[in-house]
Amino acid sequence: MTVKAIVATQSADNTRRWCQAFRNAWPEARFDAWSESSPVPSGARYAIVWQPPSALFRNETALEAVFNLGAGVDSLLRLPELPRSLSIVRLEGAGMAEQMVEYVLYGLLRAAREFSNYAVSQADVRWQTRPAIRREDWPVGVMGLGTIGTEVAQAVARLGYPVAGWSRTARPVPGIEIFGGQENLAAFLARTRVLVNVLPLTPDTEDILNRDNLSRLLPDGYLINVARGRHLVEEDLLALLDGGRLMGAMLDVFRTEPLPADHPFWRHPGIVVTPHVAAITLQDDTVAQIVGKIRDMERGVAVSGVVNRGSGY
Amino acid sequence: MTVKAIVATQSADNTRRWCQAFRNAWPEARFDAWSESSPVPSGARYAIVWQPPSALFRNETALEAVFNLGAGVDSLLRLPELPRSLSIVRLEGAGMAEQMVEYVLYGLLRAAREFSNYAVSQADVRWQTRPAIRREDWPVGVMGLGTIGTEVAQAVARLGYPVAGWSRTARPVPGIEIFGGQENLAAFLARTRVLVNVLPLTPDTEDILNRDNLSRLLPDGYLINVARGRHLVEEDLLALLDGGRLMGAMLDVFRTEPLPADHPFWRHPGIVVTPHVAAITLQDDTVAQIVGKIRDMERGVAVSGVVNRGSGY
Repeated sequence: MTVKAIVATQSADNTRRWCQAFRNAWPEARFDAWSESSPVPSGARYAIVWQPPSALFRNETALEAVFNLGAGVDSLLRLPELPRSLSIVRLEGAGMAEQMVEYVLYGLLRAAREFSNYAVSQADVRWQTRPAIRREDWPVGVMGLGTIGTEVAQAVARLGYPVAGWSRTARPVPGIEIFGGQENLAAFLARTRVLVNVLPLTPDTEDILNRDNLSRLLPDGYLINVARGRHLVEEDLLALLDGGRLMGAMLDVFRTEPLPADHPFWRHPGIVVTPHVAAITLQDDTVAQIVGKIRDMERGVAVSGVVNRGSGY
Repeated sequence: MTVKAIVATQSADNTRRWCQAFRNAWPEARFDAWSESSPVPSGARYAIVWQPPSALFRNETALEAVFNLGAGVDSLLRLPELPRSLSIVRLEGAGMAEQMVEYVLYGLLRAAREFSNYAVSQADVRWQTRPAIRREDWPVGVMGLGTIGTEVAQAVARLGYPVAGWSRTARPVPGIEIFGGQENLAAFLARTRVLVNVLPLTPDTEDILNRDNLSRLLPDGYLINVARGRHLVEEDLLALLDGGRLMGAMLDVFRTEPLPADHPFWRHPGIVVTPHVAAITLQDDTVAQIVGKIRDMERGVAVSGVVNRGSGY
């Protein structure tokens, strides 16, 4: 029997592109674009989605598993019509961690090595050297120690910065000081100057980057957020920057995306804004991973990356 | 007998600071600041210098070895009164390589991950995503494979970029494609998009970053110069940038330093200027290294880092 999958994303163009890529990779299977206007159920057992319309799940009743075209499944889990029984499979790796590592290294070096200050000096045509930094003065803390967080922490440690990690469970990572659970969050923040957020967004982590927590960082702290906009209480960050409690921030994600033109982040001298590009889904790697997992499921082999509905990731 | 060393740098303040640091590290030895106005020879067998006045070498005739407070000895070797018989010892490591690695990673990521383009978008309040890059499209080439060049090449390779190295002799480096000698320079440049210069400055390498050589790079090439200003023919770089042959450059060193206020590099949109800070001499590490080498020489033990006058480094 032909394997059937239905593809749905936030735009028809994007859906068409993904369908074509899956067809090229696995010509014997059938990949159809889902559309709200032709609601004859396809009978597909698999859906491949990114921010799909909720109606997909009302319409496609034969689904057994949903593959998310990204690591974060928070928006998918919020859909009202998503059946509780459905297996949700998130994207793992597929080039995401390597890209996140690059983004974080860039943000860290920009702050710690003062490249942002040198840019100001260049604009002012001012030859102004600054003393060498000591890496001990720039302890980095990574919140979230899944695949991505672990690779980020290790890459930063390789450059010689002291690194700690915080996660719900205190799974050990070689070379990284680990803080586990809510009860150790304050201690983790108190030894951190550059805070890197790669947490999954769940009810427990929403708004975690708030005034209370950000105020615990070492003086002249710096925030790098590559996870989700809803982790950050945006007005709290602005207050702490403007009060001199934090030094700056590099932000890739926002509560509203695209970031509205009148949002104060755009023009704030202490904030670097990037348009949700820290880790872009790489089509070839993603297609290969999902095709491999569908083949495994067809053979009755368990796959990795299945989301735990309890923890939300 | 008390070990005596004379210290001379480009400024009296700086000389005083270094003297004090050496005295703290080795109280039993004697470290004196040299000054042109009190020219009684100290009888010191060691000099510790950074851009010293040439008169030092006319005055201090008991010298056996000169320790340079930096890796590059090009300006020292040009001094007319430097005796041919004197051993010149350059600074090795002492935190220089780690700093150079950071500088180069920052410059590479700024170019390859398009952070410079995102900065323009932010200034324009424009949410504009760009496609993911492929690291294969950003081959990096490192000119100069001493301690610093080797560490730089390996750090870039660890991020997943294709890396080649070029040096006078083709000493192998694990994981790096090596091109050796003048006869392989063109081939090395032709496979390189981001060119990183960490060569020593010698008569053979002066002006090596000229129009001919820079024109051989892959389209949209990028130059990172952390070695010496005299490696680069500055007007050639400007012509290639303005003609669209190169994409940009990040420059830490210049033919005249401080870079004059009317120099076109300051205001060029494709050029990042930093004030010779890619690797700052770290006082503690440097003092420990030089004290260790003087102790070895006193015991008749050969030290590393002695400059070969023939090759100039």
